[in-house]
Amino acid sequence: MRSVARIPAVRREIARWRRLGHRVAFVPTMGGIHEGHLSLIRLARAGADRVIASIFVNPLQFGPKEDFRAYPRPRLRDRALLRAAGVDLLWEPGIEDLYPRGHLTRVRVRELEESLEGFARPGHFEGVATVVLKLLHVVMPDVLWLGQKDAQQAIIIERLVHDLLLPVDVRRGPTVREPDGLAMSSRNAYLTKAQRADAVALSRGLAAALSALREGEHEAARLRRTVQAELKARPAVVTEYVAVVDAKTLKPVKRVRGRVLIAVAARVGKARLIDNLEWGPR
Amino acid sequence: MRSVARIPAVRREIARWRRLGHRVAFVPTMGGIHEGHLSLIRLARAGADRVIASIFVNPLQFGPKEDFRAYPRPRLRDRALLRAAGVDLLWEPGIEDLYPRGHLTRVRVRELEESLEGFARPGHFEGVATVVLKLLHVVMPDVLWLGQKDAQQAIIIERLVHDLLLPVDVRRGPTVREPDGLAMSSRNAYLTKAQRADAVALSRGLAAALSALREGEHEAARLRRTVQAELKARPAVVTEYVAVVDAKTLKPVKRVRGRVLIAVAARVGKARLIDNLEWGPR
Repeated sequence: MRSVARIPAVRREIARWRRLGHRVAFVPTMGGIHEGHLSLIRLARAGADRVIASIFVNPLQFGPKEDFRAYPRPRLRDRALLRAAGVDLLWEPGIEDLYPRGHLTRVRVRELEESLEGFARPGHFEGVATVVLKLLHVVMPDVLWLGQKDAQQAIIIERLVHDLLLPVDVRRGPTVREPDGLAMSSRNAYLTKAQRADAVALSRGLAAALSALREGEHEAARLRRTVQAELKARPAVVTEYVAVVDAKTLKPVKRVRGRVLIAVAARVGKARLIDNLEWGPR
Repeated sequence: MRSVARIPAVRREIARWRRLGHRVAFVPTMGGIHEGHLSLIRLARAGADRVIASIFVNPLQFGPKEDFRAYPRPRLRDRALLRAAGVDLLWEPGIEDLYPRGHLTRVRVRELEESLEGFARPGHFEGVATVVLKLLHVVMPDVLWLGQKDAQQAIIIERLVHDLLLPVDVRRGPTVREPDGLAMSSRNAYLTKAQRADAVALSRGLAAALSALREGEHEAARLRRTVQAELKARPAVVTEYVAVVDAKTLKPVKRVRGRVLIAVAARVGKARLIDNLEWGPR
């Protein structure tokens, strides 16, 4: 695995692959690599000749009171894990590589950016959309891999790529979970032992909602209460939202008809955790 | 010259050129082709192996009370002129090609989009930036040619391409003028004979400012008054703004030091006309 920082080095290596006719897959990350990222690398690996990953903790997607500084940056460990998973090229840009002096350009995906995480974190998805577009302009991969854990992010990037006519195939890898069900996240590192035990409430709540869906429950309000019951049972968990929304428009639904996203966000100690499930025909 | 509408046809032709190692230049237009556009085609021609032009009257950059419907669309004439000037491929997308159903994505170049034309035409440059980015994603040219006549547009697109890390060289062609000095514009077609005579005030005003600059005048207020004097002398001309701004930030300057843009906008009958000059070291 080669590791580079500067954009011309990335472009040169990818141009070399292109001349060889290689199919290129890209997995952007913020580091704090865990099994969720590694599963994306393996999916990328399986469908392409070359895999490029990036590590960039993007300041533009953090609010002024969020954890930009505290966000885990275990670079040596990250590199070893990505190398072992089969990354060919690791791109670790500096802030000045992605944000040229005097930069003023921003990308928005209207409506989708305003609900759920966007409501809780104003400006977050403008930061995500802007940086992902820049990364794509440098890498120009055939395939972009994103994780289902950040479902709204994936839905927004899918819409952006489609709307902006980018010739990139956006794919999602399934959420990878700890043995007890907790969704893998770099932010799980913030949890104390007791909080870690309570954090299982998010996945338990979604599992309960899934059981209810399978038994024919279609009322959004009842599905939400099913999730909330699990969250309320855990003292360390402070619920931010439990939402049942259309999986494409992210608008709330009253009854489950087409494909829906059930999304949950909660604070557990210093960590803000999210999890979700999708259900129904695509 | 081949003429195509659909995106896959454009991509196929350009991929074919790329396999031949050809350098590709792109001239986007809204049609109503005049000598200004044709000069850009010739500049593009001189620096590339292949030239692609597009004609698309972009609804997103017109305000609700603007001339989207009235905008000139002399397609047969446009095609003949572009063919004769040496265009290899003419792309004439439909609205549904550039704006997929349910599209929500918008691109902004903050601050630059708010002054001059952006102040007079709210949302205009968001429409311009969004459509140009889409066009670039389909064509992915080596060089993009824009006209100095729409200076703010060129400055905004240059910033966008730089900020978003697009590997495209943005070049500007000089404003082409009628014998009396009037800048070529598709909107000149709206002028009656009397209005056409008065419309020369914009270029006369700028020419007077240029003379003053050459004679050492550096006070922005006096340069503005010099331009305004020519505009006021013509009864059909209703001035919208005369501005002396930094040519990079578009912020007003009091004294001419670095490179400046002197920009003017005025209504003449049904036409809204703009013109400008740049002065000083780059």
